[in-house]
Amino acid sequence: MNMKKKQIIIINGPNLNLLGTREPQIYGRVTFGDYLQKLRSLFDENVEFKYFQSNSEGAIIDFIQAHSEDSDGLVINAGAYTHTSVAIRDALANIHLPKVEVHISNVHKRESFRHHSYLSDVCDGVIAGLGLEGYEYGVRYVLSR
Amino acid sequence: MNMKKKQIIIINGPNLNLLGTREPQIYGRVTFGDYLQKLRSLFDENVEFKYFQSNSEGAIIDFIQAHSEDSDGLVINAGAYTHTSVAIRDALANIHLPKVEVHISNVHKRESFRHHSYLSDVCDGVIAGLGLEGYEYGVRYVLSR
Amino acid sequence: MNMKKKQIIIINGPNLNLLGTREPQIYGRVTFGDYLQKLRSLFDENVEFKYFQSNSEGAIIDFIQAHSEDSDGLVINAGAYTHTSVAIRDALANIHLPKVEVHISNVHKRESFRHHSYLSDVCDGVIAGLGLEGYEYGVRYVLSR
Amino acid sequence: MNMKKKQIIIINGPNLNLLGTREPQIYGRVTFGDYLQKLRSLFDENVEFKYFQSNSEGAIIDFIQAHSEDSDGLVINAGAYTHTSVAIRDALANIHLPKVEVHISNVHKRESFRHHSYLSDVCDGVIAGLGLEGYEYGVRYVLSR
Amino acid sequence: MNMKKKQIIIINGPNLNLLGTREPQIYGRVTFGDYLQKLRSLFDENVEFKYFQSNSEGAIIDFIQAHSEDSDGLVINAGAYTHTSVAIRDALANIHLPKVEVHISNVHKRESFRHHSYLSDVCDGVIAGLGLEGYEYGVRYVLSR
Amino acid sequence: MNMKKKQIIIINGPNLNLLGTREPQIYGRVTFGDYLQKLRSLFDENVEFKYFQSNSEGAIIDFIQAHSEDSDGLVINAGAYTHTSVAIRDALANIHLPKVEVHISNVHKRESFRHHSYLSDVCDGVIAGLGLEGYEYGVRYVLSR
Amino acid sequence: MNMKKKQIIIINGPNLNLLGTREPQIYGRVTFGDYLQKLRSLFDENVEFKYFQSNSEGAIIDFIQAHSEDSDGLVINAGAYTHTSVAIRDALANIHLPKVEVHISNVHKRESFRHHSYLSDVCDGVIAGLGLEGYEYGVRYVLSR
Amino acid sequence: MNMKKKQIIIINGPNLNLLGTREPQIYGRVTFGDYLQKLRSLFDENVEFKYFQSNSEGAIIDFIQAHSEDSDGLVINAGAYTHTSVAIRDALANIHLPKVEVHISNVHKRESFRHHSYLSDVCDGVIAGLGLEGYEYGVRYVLSR
Amino acid sequence: MNMKKKQIIIINGPNLNLLGTREPQIYGRVTFGDYLQKLRSLFDENVEFKYFQSNSEGAIIDFIQAHSEDSDGLVINAGAYTHTSVAIRDALANIHLPKVEVHISNVHKRESFRHHSYLSDVCDGVIAGLGLEGYEYGVRYVLSR
Amino acid sequence: MNMKKKQIIIINGPNLNLLGTREPQIYGRVTFGDYLQKLRSLFDENVEFKYFQSNSEGAIIDFIQAHSEDSDGLVINAGAYTHTSVAIRDALANIHLPKVEVHISNVHKRESFRHHSYLSDVCDGVIAGLGLEGYEYGVRYVLSR
Amino acid sequence: MNMKKKQIIIINGPNLNLLGTREPQIYGRVTFGDYLQKLRSLFDENVEFKYFQSNSEGAIIDFIQAHSEDSDGLVINAGAYTHTSVAIRDALANIHLPKVEVHISNVHKRESFRHHSYLSDVCDGVIAGLGLEGYEYGVRYVLSR
Amino acid sequence: MNMKKKQIIIINGPNLNLLGTREPQIYGRVTFGDYLQKLRSLFDENVEFKYFQSNSEGAIIDFIQAHSEDSDGLVINAGAYTHTSVAIRDALANIHLPKVEVHISNVHKRESFRHHSYLSDVCDGVIAGLGLEGYEYGVRYVLSR
Repeated sequence: MNMKKKQIIIINGPNLNLLGTREPQIYGRVTFGDYLQKLRSLFDENVEFKYFQSNSEGAIIDFIQAHSEDSDGLVINAGAYTHTSVAIRDALANIHLPKVEVHISNVHKRESFRHHSYLSDVCDGVIAGLGLEGYEYGVRYVLSR
Repeated sequence: MNMKKKQIIIINGPNLNLLGTREPQIYGRVTFGDYLQKLRSLFDENVEFKYFQSNSEGAIIDFIQAHSEDSDGLVINAGAYTHTSVAIRDALANIHLPKVEVHISNVHKRESFRHHSYLSDVCDGVIAGLGLEGYEYGVRYVLSR
Repeated sequence: MNMKKKQIIIINGPNLNLLGTREPQIYGRVTFGDYLQKLRSLFDENVEFKYFQSNSEGAIIDFIQAHSEDSDGLVINAGAYTHTSVAIRDALANIHLPKVEVHISNVHKRESFRHHSYLSDVCDGVIAGLGLEGYEYGVRYVLSR
Repeated sequence: MNMKKKQIIIINGPNLNLLGTREPQIYGRVTFGDYLQKLRSLFDENVEFKYFQSNSEGAIIDFIQAHSEDSDGLVINAGAYTHTSVAIRDALANIHLPKVEVHISNVHKRESFRHHSYLSDVCDGVIAGLGLEGYEYGVRYVLSR
Repeated sequence: MNMKKKQIIIINGPNLNLLGTREPQIYGRVTFGDYLQKLRSLFDENVEFKYFQSNSEGAIIDFIQAHSEDSDGLVINAGAYTHTSVAIRDALANIHLPKVEVHISNVHKRESFRHHSYLSDVCDGVIAGLGLEGYEYGVRYVLSR
Repeated sequence: MNMKKKQIIIINGPNLNLLGTREPQIYGRVTFGDYLQKLRSLFDENVEFKYFQSNSEGAIIDFIQAHSEDSDGLVINAGAYTHTSVAIRDALANIHLPKVEVHISNVHKRESFRHHSYLSDVCDGVIAGLGLEGYEYGVRYVLSR
Repeated sequence: MNMKKKQIIIINGPNLNLLGTREPQIYGRVTFGDYLQKLRSLFDENVEFKYFQSNSEGAIIDFIQAHSEDSDGLVINAGAYTHTSVAIRDALANIHLPKVEVHISNVHKRESFRHHSYLSDVCDGVIAGLGLEGYEYGVRYVLSR
Repeated sequence: MNMKKKQIIIINGPNLNLLGTREPQIYGRVTFGDYLQKLRSLFDENVEFKYFQSNSEGAIIDFIQAHSEDSDGLVINAGAYTHTSVAIRDALANIHLPKVEVHISNVHKRESFRHHSYLSDVCDGVIAGLGLEGYEYGVRYVLSR
Repeated sequence: MNMKKKQIIIINGPNLNLLGTREPQIYGRVTFGDYLQKLRSLFDENVEFKYFQSNSEGAIIDFIQAHSEDSDGLVINAGAYTHTSVAIRDALANIHLPKVEVHISNVHKRESFRHHSYLSDVCDGVIAGLGLEGYEYGVRYVLSR
Repeated sequence: MNMKKKQIIIINGPNLNLLGTREPQIYGRVTFGDYLQKLRSLFDENVEFKYFQSNSEGAIIDFIQAHSEDSDGLVINAGAYTHTSVAIRDALANIHLPKVEVHISNVHKRESFRHHSYLSDVCDGVIAGLGLEGYEYGVRYVLSR
Repeated sequence: MNMKKKQIIIINGPNLNLLGTREPQIYGRVTFGDYLQKLRSLFDENVEFKYFQSNSEGAIIDFIQAHSEDSDGLVINAGAYTHTSVAIRDALANIHLPKVEVHISNVHKRESFRHHSYLSDVCDGVIAGLGLEGYEYGVRYVLSR
Repeated sequence: MNMKKKQIIIINGPNLNLLGTREPQIYGRVTFGDYLQKLRSLFDENVEFKYFQSNSEGAIIDFIQAHSEDSDGLVINAGAYTHTSVAIRDALANIHLPKVEVHISNVHKRESFRHHSYLSDVCDGVIAGLGLEGYEYGVRYVLSR
């Protein structure tokens, strides 16, 4: 029965809507829509996903505020906002769910400004560089808590 | 008569809509709605407040541009954008009203990235750590100018 | 015939909608509307301009994503976001058009935080301090590619 | 009756004895003696002020140690010692009263070495750039605690 | 049949032999021996683990050199050497297997010298703060490659 | 008549005499002699160019001092001296003509020591990364002033 | 006979007169008067102590200048001036006695500005974090030289 | 009776086995063997020393892990590892005995990379520059706890 | 007649009272008393000197405040306070006389913390390393203004 | 008789040939030729000056090498090369004459890159901000040695 | 006769045992065994080599201590420990032989953390980037001393 | 026959013409002329040397440009320009010969500004501190390529 499923938020930040269409050498050729379908079938019995993508910092904060109260966990790939947004950090710090920060590419192999994250120390943990599977592992972690 | 009241803008930045509902150890248990009512009654004869809160940097700039021309002063708690937004700084630098930057908590007791503000040197002054009363003192200052 | 004209995107970032109305000692007294008209007549036979201004980082990214595929070049003055937005950088890095970063004022004469740009190394080049003519030279460059 | 008034310490640091006589473009033309009189009449029924000014770091520490035990709050403008004195910081950290740091001018508009204060995180909060009214707001805050 | 199983190296660095016996508030109460058993049963059909723990930087390098040629992947929690060992970095850079860096605790919540890793950009990716499950996800990643 | 033409100085710094002969992937295959001819024909009616190239910092300063008094503008690509010469900066600061700093390649895509220029804030503006056309735009700007 | 006793200077800097009365979690509950008595009885036959405490940097320098010539050693806990006083450093560098710097608390566990001492490299050595016994060890060292 | 003696660990790091044989201008001419004998006779009735010296970081960690459980205190001069070893730091942080960091020479008079210690804030305190007596004072401190 | 002589303040900071008695390799063997006599005879007809030395930062500020109004110039060697005192800087900035900063030794040959002066940019100029003659040249400069 | 006069080298660096003709608000209106005449008449009986000005770093080094052997002292204002030339530093370090570094303006009031000099610690001392008189004082110092 | 040959130590640090087998684009395809043979034949009459390679920092120090007394020179390529080992630095500083630091690849073309060596200033000199010949030149240098 | 000899450029930078005449404690007592003779005789059959020394940065670049095309290798000791000249770096980067950077003294034992070289990563390698023999080894390397 649907009601008993875990509610897990998945948030993607700016430019991640282009996943699978541009810069495949970094992010691969699968669109996030494709992947989300796979994720849904993988956790079909246990999880209901609330997915949100936006290029707007404010919209991401609005979504976190609106949906965190009645959810069981959160997996966030804030994209470029990872490195610049104290505001999303504060939104995440305000909620008390299992939270995992995910990056598809290995940010440590890229520009030095991508080596710092404002989100890491207000999340439970971080997964970086493991491709789209990073989201799956993030969901597994949330379910294990 | 209403027409003769001073028009004072009060702006709150991201996550400040949650005031009084989350992280009370830092921000207290009074909602900003409660406090604004108190503020309105305190300055009832002299001031009409234009209050705006948003989680969006762009929306805050839009509001500043739209309302500063016909106002007499501005009190802003830009929250996390204090530390990251050159754009709000530029919007404030563009207007020539008495301007006060307010922080409810003492930012100097928190993470080091909260010790720098892009807004302080384009405002008349700063009030930090004096709780919600900071807004009241900001309004008093604006009225004294 | 319109169809054969080059499509060139011009994007202005936060507070640049006030151009010509405020801080004329830095930006001059001509509004961008006035200037755009001049630009259009200058390149009338060859270019169709898609102009966009926004105070919102997310909206700028949305615009870049929506319009870059069927355009021939891009001239961007991201204003304050130049110095803080990794997200706009990523949006620009994703597109493969001739791209020029423009600043009306000489950012190197202003505050030190304006000396760094997140956009410069994902654009073809940069023009700063040459006033509104900077846009014209940017367009000329795009047309020459 | 005098005995029931709140005892509030006001301390001014080096060179603030010249207030109103030199550098009026930064500090204004009112002497602190004039202002203190105004402050006393404003809070006449509730507050007895213990005022101290010194150019000597050690003398300020002596005063804090001698008077904090039987006082109800403290407002301090340590002037230049704000930026260099760990010793005054330690003296303030030792006392458990409502404490407000005040600066008449907006230190954030001045030299960069004035942007750091050794006192801010051992006080309840900070008021900067609001002129002499800063002391009044500091007193109001102390009374509200 | 054993021969067909994937060979996966798991390496733990200094002090991780104490796991489950000391500092449980950071690392939990399960010993790594307990956990490894669980891991073995979880991947029993597919994986044969080569486990190595040492407090010696040189011994870890010796092990990597000796065993990487005939293995299919590597999961390493180098503990404190993560932050100081260029030599282990070089050993890892020399081998061409799927490699995952794991940290049990969220290093970003700890001392700032733990925020930098010499290993991250020579591994495929990093998992931090997800507890002992981090090893499991690391193994899953290796198997998926 | 020659006498009425604008006198514009063009200065190239060290190694720019090799333009078109070496490192074509950065600077292209056109020699500056070729380009200068094109530039002369483009502005034939309006401009007389005084061109100077030297590998010597001192000789460049000598030239600026000798020729700036009777000129109408200056376009300078100081090459490597851009990043190291306070002396050329001082020579430029001494003259009161429209001045444009030009770089053929996008210095922001190259080594970090090329990201700082001692010349930018004593020139009117900067053009970088637009190839040899940068000189043309610089001349256009000078003529527009 | 008194005349043959070693003369040892003990100097305590700002706020150390409060020892035993405030912040006992850092400095303990014994006053320095109590401890000095214990120290005097411990070295009764060999040492005559000249004790000085002041909150004033200048007074500490005056004391060092006045008493170092006819003394056999010096133990100094300059408190907060440890981290800010080049002047006390110079006073100590001027005298040629065995000199030991003492800190009651472990300064390395406290704020980062307490990790640097202007005095350490002009003293023979440093003792930190060993409580009041640090003074005793300092005296022992002086006597051994 | 032996059983009742306090067990105190003394650890010396790399190159300290050469003490008294090389660089006597910094470390003196007494070998540590000589000194240890003196130390043993000084505390003969109360203390049994477990002494360990190694040039290997890993061996030092092994020793700390193996011997700390049944000991009463630890005095460590980690030599060069003081400045580079997070791994020894972690080993020390794991044990809950009185711990003193000792340096024979005054590290603050030497190269700047010797001014930082990874061990100081996980030990009770530090003694530097007091020669071999530093070990004696360290033992005295441990016995006083 | 005395009344017509120029009044010139000479201030020496901490430890300069020991001049000629200690560290002669840096400061020489002449006491400042000796030198002042020489200075007085050199300028006997034109100048009356007001000399002040103190080890106390506050006393130096008191002296500057008390004597600058009726003086014609000031020569200050603030010794160690040169590098740490914003308060003396502010006192000097407050007065509008010809002001020269003097150092007997060449501070640039000494520790790096002596390379920065808080006083230099609020004085007319600086003389360093020219021995006691530096005071004479400072007086000459003041007289020439 | 000429032969008995002291030989003193005076060197001026880049752009100082323009002294008195440009930027008079910083350097005054007297040309160096005018001043040198004054200097020559002031020291007519004792000194023969060898004056050299060049915009070329190499030419300044050539001059120092050629003339220092048979001279009695050197006064150098290296202008912009002060801040960038290790080569002139080395040339000065090679010669063993009294050497004084002079700056006409107060470099500490100007851009921060002018606050560091490569020459100061290889000269006897520095005079800055005392106008052209600085050269005179430099000569006086050289003569006194 | 063998006894009269010079004894020269050659030490290779971590991962250099893989030379010629991995990362040939950086280190070439010759194994160190091959090269050592060549070196031995080249200096056959004059030199006896003591060769040591280890991945362990401690073992390298042990070897230096054990063999330096009866040797005539040392050539060391400490590999990654070059950049992190103060302990090997101290071991080298303790011995008084001609010492040369060698790197096969040009460390200045690689990651910035390889640009600093803890060993360079305790060796006589450094050879980097000249391939395996660097060892030969190091030996030549040692023989020339 | 001369024609078949390898052409090798040797360049010495500023102040190296004084070699053997000044500062012999750093550079030795042999003049470069003496040494060059020795070098010529050593490689007499194989090499023709083109030697150039200049104190001028520009002249060194001119020489590199003029002679590199028809040469087989280059050995450069740019002296002080090593640390300041991006222009010589660019000249070297432009040529495609075996290139070796040489320093006679061990720059790592000298001032910290000599620890960075602008030339190292555009040369094949670096030899420092091995005295004049460094040039010989540089030539050997060039010949081996």
